[in-house]
Amino acid sequence: MTLNDFLKSKAYVLKSRPAGKPTPDDFEEIEVALPALEDGQILLEAKYISVDPYMRGRMSDQKSYVAPFEIGQPITGGVVARVMESRSSMFHPGDMVMGMLKWEDIQIAWATEVQKIDVELAPASYYLGLFGLTGLTAYFGMMRIAKPKPAETVVISGAAGAVGMVVGQIAKIMGCNVIGIAGSPSKQRFLTEELGFDYAFDYHDLQTLEENLHRAAPLGVDIYFDNVGGEVSDLILNYITHGARIVICGQIALYNDPKKAVGPYPQIALIKNSALMKGFIVSDYADSFHEGQLELIKWYKEGVLKGHETVIQGFDKLPETFISLFDGKNTGKMLIQV
Amino acid sequence: MTLNDFLKSKAYVLKSRPAGKPTPDDFEEIEVALPALEDGQILLEAKYISVDPYMRGRMSDQKSYVAPFEIGQPITGGVVARVMESRSSMFHPGDMVMGMLKWEDIQIAWATEVQKIDVELAPASYYLGLFGLTGLTAYFGMMRIAKPKPAETVVISGAAGAVGMVVGQIAKIMGCNVIGIAGSPSKQRFLTEELGFDYAFDYHDLQTLEENLHRAAPLGVDIYFDNVGGEVSDLILNYITHGARIVICGQIALYNDPKKAVGPYPQIALIKNSALMKGFIVSDYADSFHEGQLELIKWYKEGVLKGHETVIQGFDKLPETFISLFDGKNTGKMLIQV
Repeated sequence: MTLNDFLKSKAYVLKSRPAGKPTPDDFEEIEVALPALEDGQILLEAKYISVDPYMRGRMSDQKSYVAPFEIGQPITGGVVARVMESRSSMFHPGDMVMGMLKWEDIQIAWATEVQKIDVELAPASYYLGLFGLTGLTAYFGMMRIAKPKPAETVVISGAAGAVGMVVGQIAKIMGCNVIGIAGSPSKQRFLTEELGFDYAFDYHDLQTLEENLHRAAPLGVDIYFDNVGGEVSDLILNYITHGARIVICGQIALYNDPKKAVGPYPQIALIKNSALMKGFIVSDYADSFHEGQLELIKWYKEGVLKGHETVIQGFDKLPETFISLFDGKNTGKMLIQV
Repeated sequence: MTLNDFLKSKAYVLKSRPAGKPTPDDFEEIEVALPALEDGQILLEAKYISVDPYMRGRMSDQKSYVAPFEIGQPITGGVVARVMESRSSMFHPGDMVMGMLKWEDIQIAWATEVQKIDVELAPASYYLGLFGLTGLTAYFGMMRIAKPKPAETVVISGAAGAVGMVVGQIAKIMGCNVIGIAGSPSKQRFLTEELGFDYAFDYHDLQTLEENLHRAAPLGVDIYFDNVGGEVSDLILNYITHGARIVICGQIALYNDPKKAVGPYPQIALIKNSALMKGFIVSDYADSFHEGQLELIKWYKEGVLKGHETVIQGFDKLPETFISLFDGKNTGKMLIQV
């Protein structure tokens, strides 16, 4: 007899594939009866659950590199959890771990699916943000694709989001002129006052944005780290320099509305400027995750890299918190504390 | 007294900047009185003059990496010429040379502006095509950006054009499955029967093109070498594989009509497939021209790389021959024999 013989867990499954922006009705909370642990398995209690814009892509049934979520099956994503019980020599009860796990408050996983985290070094939740897939996304997008050089100008859309805020800090560490684009005065102050960005601009009025860009990037934009897409990106492409690198990390402005996914061809700007545009997903660099994490942790210890989170309390808030990402409700990493 | 005291030359100057497709009225033929040769200069008689789609960009007064042509000044481009007289120890009368020179039948150049060519090895005109900037464009676009691997599928738009026909041959040398897109049955036969492309398809009916692509590239497109842009490119982007490379060499479909330069954002396909899109101009690789030329000549000598030209007779045909590029009138390299 084990602990989980007495336990039932709650899980969120995908109920329907959203047509545009997801709604709470696309999710369903179900009760799950947990089977007994097998050898090599661990019983986990979720502490923090990550919500990320890329998960919208997995809700659609389209060809993509990451498999779509299955209807009726639990959503999966980044989770930090405490080990309640272990039938693996790798973990002991009380250990804190992270992994790509289910939106389930109590769940069974294979020991090989998770990694132990060091909660002495930093808050446990940072392993979903700064040291997790979002931090690694920023790290590899910058260090493997953009390859910033000192004094280059870097523009970041969605700059106050989980990835963008790390991208800008890495660009500062590399000695760049850093311009963040974010949608509210409080986000803009956060970028310049808390994180040391050189400039932070609003995007709602494109003409004002263009004037600001002229002033802050008089020699043009060497690196554009794009989390958003659409009209803002069209504008910035007019200002790229010869040899510019455009990192396509997200296109959140386009995810929910296919009609918006039409605009001026960027090919014209690319050919005029011998510029590079590269899409990626963090798992492309899975072989180097350890290297990336060590570097992020080193910068954090040195005090040149900061984390920032928007934490919402309660497992039941998962659907609406995820949906709020598309309204720009978060500053920094958005997550649920269970 | 020197030979050119007796000579007048003809030149084509840019008379006006075209709004859309260039017309003969955008050019003007003028008579030029040649000054005496200075030390270090040579007198040249043009033998072949290159016309290239990229020159359309230089006719506009827009920011670009290559400076625009000046109104009232001679057009410049690739020219093969015979040395008539030399005040440089580098050249002797009768030498054949090539360089970026004026659209002028007889002209003065600095010896340092041209390079001698070996007309024993190949026809002189090949130094404007196969071994010239067009061949080098194909070479660097493939070897430095696309980096083909054996058994990968390569699609080329504008495949029967000067650059495209070399791209496809390099892809075959690299062991790829090669699909050329070209606009007439005779061009398609040229690609498969003369150059060894695996497939050649028409683009006029997009649905037929899509069906053909399904059949010829069942696993998707690993490399797309794009000389054309527009709807054909939109279609091919739906079929790229994870890690695909898209080389933006030309966008001839868009050069003359800015209204056509709007379509589905390729960023979506890039992010879904972790794909790369890179614009370039051959001068980005100027430091490696010698290396590229040696490799192209080696393949030519081995018989695995062929040249092909559409040669129009007469200096006076320059404007209309250039304009005909945009109607797809050429197969292979288009040039004027003076």
